[in-house]
Amino acid sequence: MKLFSLNSNKGLAEEIAKVIGLELGKTSVTRFSDGEIQINIEESIRGCDVFVIQSTSGPVNEHLMELLIMIDALKRASAKTINIVMPYYGYARQDRKARAREPITAKLVANLLETAGATRVITLDLHAPQIQGFFDIPIDHLMGVPILSEYFKTKKFDHDIVIVSPDHGGVTRARKLAERLKAPIAIIDKRRPKPNVAEVMNIVGHIDGKVAILIDDIIDTAGTITLAANALIENGAAEVYACCTHPVLSGPAINRIENSKIKELIVTNSIALPEEKKIEKIHELSVAPLIGEAI
Amino acid sequence: MKLFSLNSNKGLAEEIAKVIGLELGKTSVTRFSDGEIQINIEESIRGCDVFVIQSTSGPVNEHLMELLIMIDALKRASAKTINIVMPYYGYARQDRKARAREPITAKLVANLLETAGATRVITLDLHAPQIQGFFDIPIDHLMGVPILSEYFKTKKFDHDIVIVSPDHGGVTRARKLAERLKAPIAIIDKRRPKPNVAEVMNIVGHIDGKVAILIDDIIDTAGTITLAANALIENGAAEVYACCTHPVLSGPAINRIENSKIKELIVTNSIALPEEKKIEKIHELSVAPLIGEAI
Ligand SMILES: Nc1ncnc2c1ncn2[C@@H]1O[C@H](COP(=O)(O)O)[C@@H](O)[C@H]1O
Ligand SMILES: Nc1ncnc2c1ncn2[C@@H]1O[C@H](COP(=O)(O)O)[C@@H](O)[C@H]1O
Repeated sequence: MKLFSLNSNKGLAEEIAKVIGLELGKTSVTRFSDGEIQINIEESIRGCDVFVIQSTSGPVNEHLMELLIMIDALKRASAKTINIVMPYYGYARQDRKARAREPITAKLVANLLETAGATRVITLDLHAPQIQGFFDIPIDHLMGVPILSEYFKTKKFDHDIVIVSPDHGGVTRARKLAERLKAPIAIIDKRRPKPNVAEVMNIVGHIDGKVAILIDDIIDTAGTITLAANALIENGAAEVYACCTHPVLSGPAINRIENSKIKELIVTNSIALPEEKKIEKIHELSVAPLIGEAI
Repeated sequence: MKLFSLNSNKGLAEEIAKVIGLELGKTSVTRFSDGEIQINIEESIRGCDVFVIQSTSGPVNEHLMELLIMIDALKRASAKTINIVMPYYGYARQDRKARAREPITAKLVANLLETAGATRVITLDLHAPQIQGFFDIPIDHLMGVPILSEYFKTKKFDHDIVIVSPDHGGVTRARKLAERLKAPIAIIDKRRPKPNVAEVMNIVGHIDGKVAILIDDIIDTAGTITLAANALIENGAAEVYACCTHPVLSGPAINRIENSKIKELIVTNSIALPEEKKIEKIHELSVAPLIGEAI
């Protein structure tokens, strides 16, 4: 068995290697002068079960192409199996045709991985669990909720807690966290009364005087989650925590979080946070033990 | 029939549209906040023969993913055929395993295009013509030499001309240009006498007092071509022109060309030159008529 890391998340890869008790394989992933990816695998992998750790986080197209080229190289070097560890599966949000002539990028990525030569995929909290069915190779779908719930169990809160889904789509996820924390749930029910009129944040469930814990799978520009947090405080919540598996945190996200009523944002290291995003409010949990076990 | 352009080479796409007498289809290719590609095709293409114009020039991974996602969208929107016009086929130089555990990116790209749903490819001067065999769909392989030779025919030179290949690999290409210009050929025969000793530029053929025309398929960092030009002048050539189909021109290329003995560099618009690369020494020829005919 051999473990290789590409460029997206080397810190996590090293942690996973430590958990498993292996060294990371020697490889270099660089660029030619014109920007094309150059990969050198510096040790034999013939007949080996190879695991490649790469999140397709931003820059997503660079990270995805690194992965596809690595898979191609491994296949041609006679790896026995090529197991892709993708803690964050990019392009997952285009997972259906919502409008005419849209691509379904989540399926395209699945096809590209299989075509390149992947034989198994290990991933975490897909934006929709249906994406598992986009693959014809085995896919292990891990869950971030247990890691998040363990963290909240270590906290002593002064008030009762309530798990809040920031939209309708996330209620199942909120339900799962609520079960583990033996807490009730609430839902933010956004509605636009008329076109071009601001949305109204209606809260379904009891949050008054409670510690509200918002949960989502991805926090990207953080618009939804910060508006939800502020609405919870306005409606009487004592404190607001937020958590997610995948901290995409693009564009205005960090600013919005800093300026929001969120007391602490708990994320996993499925996506590596660059230094400028490591702000005090954000607390990072490691998925290395979870992934190590799945490998 | 419908023609669409992605982001790599809109100028050429417009020229091709004009040559064919069609308008470019309405589409927008943008980025979500996190860098993922968002494509909107703004007119019906159901049952149409669709042509997509995109060179996989730098940023190569962005341009390749734009193309794959566009193909996916067209396929799902029931295009009858999806014809990819790739004036420049990126990743072509990794076309064989030169060392152990190397990828063959030229084949990977072919597989990715087919998997996404391409039904035919039109391209120009592949780095190796064997890449045609990497596809199981029809591929039209156009040649830049006729365009380059027509340009040289319009020039009045004060001396006889000689077509020079900058290395062994390019002799066939030089031969083709020489035939059209009814000129002899010469070859630059680089040799490294001992390891860690500078290469010696030995010139095979007669160049003394002649106008030397260097030809290559790709000029990337321009190291080879500018060293060759200087060696030709040192060995008695009266003037040196250089030409290529694909002006990649990465890294130090523009500087090297400016400071070299090359009088004029003739290129095609298979790769769009950004403003900062449009220097006086570079003359651009259009491949739009050639591609228009092939469509
Ligand atoms: N990278 C992205 N950033 C922002 N929005 C996206 C992205 N990818 C897809 N979407 C949009 O997000 C919506 C899907 O989100 P959801 O309804 O939460 O599944 C679709 O309307 C997509 O067009
Ligand atoms: N994008 C690139 N930039 C520079 N060199 C490359 C690139 N892609 C492949 N190569 C190398 O170029 C060589 C092939 O060039 P050639 O011998 O002219 O076919 C191989 O050794 C490749 O490793």
